[in-house]
Amino acid sequence: MPQTTFTVNGRDYVHQGTPVVVICIDGSEPAYHELAIEAGRMPWLKEVVATRGTSWPAHCAIPTLTNPNNMSIATGHPPAVHGICGNYILDPATGEEVLMNDPKFLRVPTLFSAASAAGLSVAIVTAKDKLRRLLATGITQPGLDPAGSGEIVEPANTGICFSAEKADTATLAENGIENVLELVGMELPSVYSSELSEFALAAGVKLLETRAPDVMYLTLTDYIQHKNAPGTETANDFYAMVDTYAAALDALGAVVVITADHGMSPKHKTDGSPRVIYLEEEVNKVLGVTGDTPEGGSRVILPITDPYTVHHGALGSFANVYLPAGADRDAIIASLRGRPGISFVHTSEEAAELFSMPLDRMGDITVLSDKDTALGRYAAWHDLANLEVPLRSHGGLGELNIPFFVNRVLPAPTETESRGPSGQQAVLHNYDAYWVATSHVAATAAATV
Amino acid sequence: MPQTTFTVNGRDYVHQGTPVVVICIDGSEPAYHELAIEAGRMPWLKEVVATRGTSWPAHCAIPTLTNPNNMSIATGHPPAVHGICGNYILDPATGEEVLMNDPKFLRVPTLFSAASAAGLSVAIVTAKDKLRRLLATGITQPGLDPAGSGEIVEPANTGICFSAEKADTATLAENGIENVLELVGMELPSVYSSELSEFALAAGVKLLETRAPDVMYLTLTDYIQHKNAPGTETANDFYAMVDTYAAALDALGAVVVITADHGMSPKHKTDGSPRVIYLEEEVNKVLGVTGDTPEGGSRVILPITDPYTVHHGALGSFANVYLPAGADRDAIIASLRGRPGISFVHTSEEAAELFSMPLDRMGDITVLSDKDTALGRYAAWHDLANLEVPLRSHGGLGELNIPFFVNRVLPAPTETESRGPSGQQAVLHNYDAYWVATSHVAATAAATV
Repeated sequence: MPQTTFTVNGRDYVHQGTPVVVICIDGSEPAYHELAIEAGRMPWLKEVVATRGTSWPAHCAIPTLTNPNNMSIATGHPPAVHGICGNYILDPATGEEVLMNDPKFLRVPTLFSAASAAGLSVAIVTAKDKLRRLLATGITQPGLDPAGSGEIVEPANTGICFSAEKADTATLAENGIENVLELVGMELPSVYSSELSEFALAAGVKLLETRAPDVMYLTLTDYIQHKNAPGTETANDFYAMVDTYAAALDALGAVVVITADHGMSPKHKTDGSPRVIYLEEEVNKVLGVTGDTPEGGSRVILPITDPYTVHHGALGSFANVYLPAGADRDAIIASLRGRPGISFVHTSEEAAELFSMPLDRMGDITVLSDKDTALGRYAAWHDLANLEVPLRSHGGLGELNIPFFVNRVLPAPTETESRGPSGQQAVLHNYDAYWVATSHVAATAAATV
Repeated sequence: MPQTTFTVNGRDYVHQGTPVVVICIDGSEPAYHELAIEAGRMPWLKEVVATRGTSWPAHCAIPTLTNPNNMSIATGHPPAVHGICGNYILDPATGEEVLMNDPKFLRVPTLFSAASAAGLSVAIVTAKDKLRRLLATGITQPGLDPAGSGEIVEPANTGICFSAEKADTATLAENGIENVLELVGMELPSVYSSELSEFALAAGVKLLETRAPDVMYLTLTDYIQHKNAPGTETANDFYAMVDTYAAALDALGAVVVITADHGMSPKHKTDGSPRVIYLEEEVNKVLGVTGDTPEGGSRVILPITDPYTVHHGALGSFANVYLPAGADRDAIIASLRGRPGISFVHTSEEAAELFSMPLDRMGDITVLSDKDTALGRYAAWHDLANLEVPLRSHGGLGELNIPFFVNRVLPAPTETESRGPSGQQAVLHNYDAYWVATSHVAATAAATV
C-alpha cells in the first residue's frame, strides 16, 4: 500500500502502508512490565527493547484517568483540546452530574476519523463498552468532521469499533462487524476479568490476520491493576498474556506501540484500609456546613466515578470542588493546602492552565491527593464494602508515568518534532503514540535510506 | 507589499504586508490599564477596544518572569521549547550560577530571524540591554538557523536590534543602526526610570515613520510597576504615555498588539515590610543544616535574580531548590507543603510537565509562593535596604494574567487555531502575539472579503 498522509487537529500523520497498532494497557504503572520482564514473563518485549525496538519514559495526560487519556491518544492532544476531562462531570449546560461517555462532549475529531477519511481502514476494540461510544465517532457513528468544520458528519468510510464487553451483540450497522465471538474464538468474558482485556487483544490479532486494518487501536481495562500490585503472580500472568498477543501482532508485520492511559498506585494504609480524605466533608467543615448529606454546602465531583466502581469505589486522586455562592474560595484553598495527603490545591483557572484541561468543566477549586492517598466526597457516599483488596487507584500526579514502547529502533523525538506548534514540553506523552507509529517511523526510515 | 508566509518552530505566520508591532509592557498586571482607562488616561486604548479592536484575557508563560516570557513571545512557545526559564540559573553544564542572557541557552530560533530570512525587515527595541543579546540572535548577531537545522548561522538579512539603555553606543555593526539618540530626539535615559520605556516606544514610532519595518518588537521595563500600584498617579502617567505612543503606531497604519511578559503583585505586609519566606534557610532547617552561609545544605536558585535587583531585591515567587546528595526529597516536599504563603511544592519533574519548562535547568524541587508572598534564600543574602517602597514582584501563578489587545476586530481564536498541534490549552498566551497579529488577522480578513 502506498504512503498516506493525513492531518487532524493540527498534527500530521504519515502512514507508510504498514498496519499500525497501538495497545493501551489500562492502569499500566511502569513497575508492572518492569517486574514482569525481570520475572521472565515478557520475553517478546524484553527482546524487542534490547534489539529492534525503543522504550522511552513518557507521561499521560491529566487527570490520570481512562476516558481523558483514551481520547487524548485518539485526538493527539490533552483534554484542553478534546474536552473529555473525566468519566463523570457536572455538566455546565444543565447543572446535572452526568457520565461523560456521550460523544456530544467531544470537541475535536479523532485521528481515527481523519485516517478513515483519508481512505485508511480503521479498527478499534475496547475492553469496556463505556469507551466505545466516544471512540466510534467518525468510524461507525457520525462524528465531528475530520476536516475541522465543526459539523457532525457521517463516517467517510465505515470502520470497525466494538467492545469485548458487548462483543456478542456487535452488528454490522452499529459496529461495522458481526459474529465477533466466532471470529475471536473466545466466550464472552465477564466485565470484571482479565479475559475482558485478553478478548480485545485476541480480537486485534484476528482482525489483523483476516482484514489487515491500516490503523488499529486496542484498549484494555485496569481490573487486574486495581487489584494486584506489580510483580505479583496475577499481575505477571496478565503481562505475560499481553506479551503473547503483542508478539503475534509484531509477527504479522505491524508497527506496534504499547502505552497506557495512566499509572496505578496503592492508596491504603499498612492495615489494608483505604487512605482517604473525604474532601466534600472537609470543605463543608470549613464552610460551617455539617451533616452527612448537607444542604448548601460544596459539591465535590470525582471524575474517576463511572458505572463500574466496584474496584475503586469512585476513590481516585483528583477532585473538582464546586463551591456554593458567596463562599470564600481563597480561604478554602488556604485551609486545604498542606494537609497531609493533599499535594495540589489551586483555583480551577490555574489548574486548567497547568494541566491543559477544559476550565468550563472543572468547578472552582481543583484538588489532587498524594500517590498514597485517595479523595472521596463524604464517607457515607462511598461503598467500600466492595473493595475486596486494599485500594489501588489513580487520577493524580502520582500516576503520570507510563510505558511507551515501539517495535522499531527510533531516535528520541525532540520537543519540536513531537509536539509541533504546541511547545508543550520535552517529555513524550501517550497521545504522541500514533504520531510516533506513523510520522516518526516514516521520517526515521527516510533518514536511513 | 505582498503577503509573506514563514514557518518557524512549527507555527505558520502569514504577514499581509502591513507593518506589525508588538508592544510588551513589562509587569503589566491587568489592573494597571483597567484603572488608567477608568481614570481617563488611556483614551486611545479605550476607543480602540470599544470600536475597532479586540481585548482578550490571556496568560503569560511560567515562570512569570521577563526573560522567559520575552523569549516565549519571540519564539511562539513556552520555555520547555526555547529553554530560557529564568534570568538566572544553575548551569547544568558547569554547576555555576549564571545569568541566562547568553544566546547559547536559547534552544530554538526566534520568529524574528525566520521573518528576516523570509525577506521581511525586522526592528527590535528593548528598554534594558539584558534582553537585547537574546533577541538579537538571527537579526544583528548570528543565531540558530530559522530553518531548524540546529546550526548557528549569520542573519539572512540584517535587521535592527538595540536597547534604550545603551542607545548612545549603538553601531551599525552591532545593532544595525547608529545615531539612535538623534533619531529618537531624546536624551539617554536612566536605567531606573519611566523614560527608559518611553525611549523604546518613541524609537518604535520614529523607526516606523522613517523605515517602516515589517515586524517590530518594543519591549519595556517594569521599573514603574515594581514601585507603583495600579491606579496611582505615577502608574497612570506611565500608561498615559504608553497610550500616546501606541496611538501614534496605530495612526501610522500598523497592526498593533499590546501584551505583557507577566503581571505584578504586592508582596508585603500591611506595615510595608516585605512578606518573605527564606526558603533556603527553611529547607536547610529540615535538612538539619544551620547557619547563615551553611555548608552541605540546599541551594535555592531564584530565577528572578538579575543584575538590576534594586527594585525587587531578587525576591520573586518562584524558586528552584537543589538538594544535597542523599537528601530525602519527599520528606522536604511534605515539610514545605501547606506552609502559609507557599502555594505549590512539587518535584521538578512534575513542575516541568505542568509549567512547560525545561527540566534540565530546574533542580530537584520547584516551589512557588502565593500572590502576596515572595521567596528568598536566607535573610542575610538579600539586600533589602534598596527597597525604597513596599515590595511588589512576580514569578508565580499570581502573576499569570496579562492584557492582550489588538487594534483589529477579530474573532476569539479557538484552541486549535491558536495552539496548533500543541493542544496546550484553550487560553490565549502572550506568545501567540505574532500569530494573532499576522495569521489570525490575515485569516479574518480573508473570511470577510
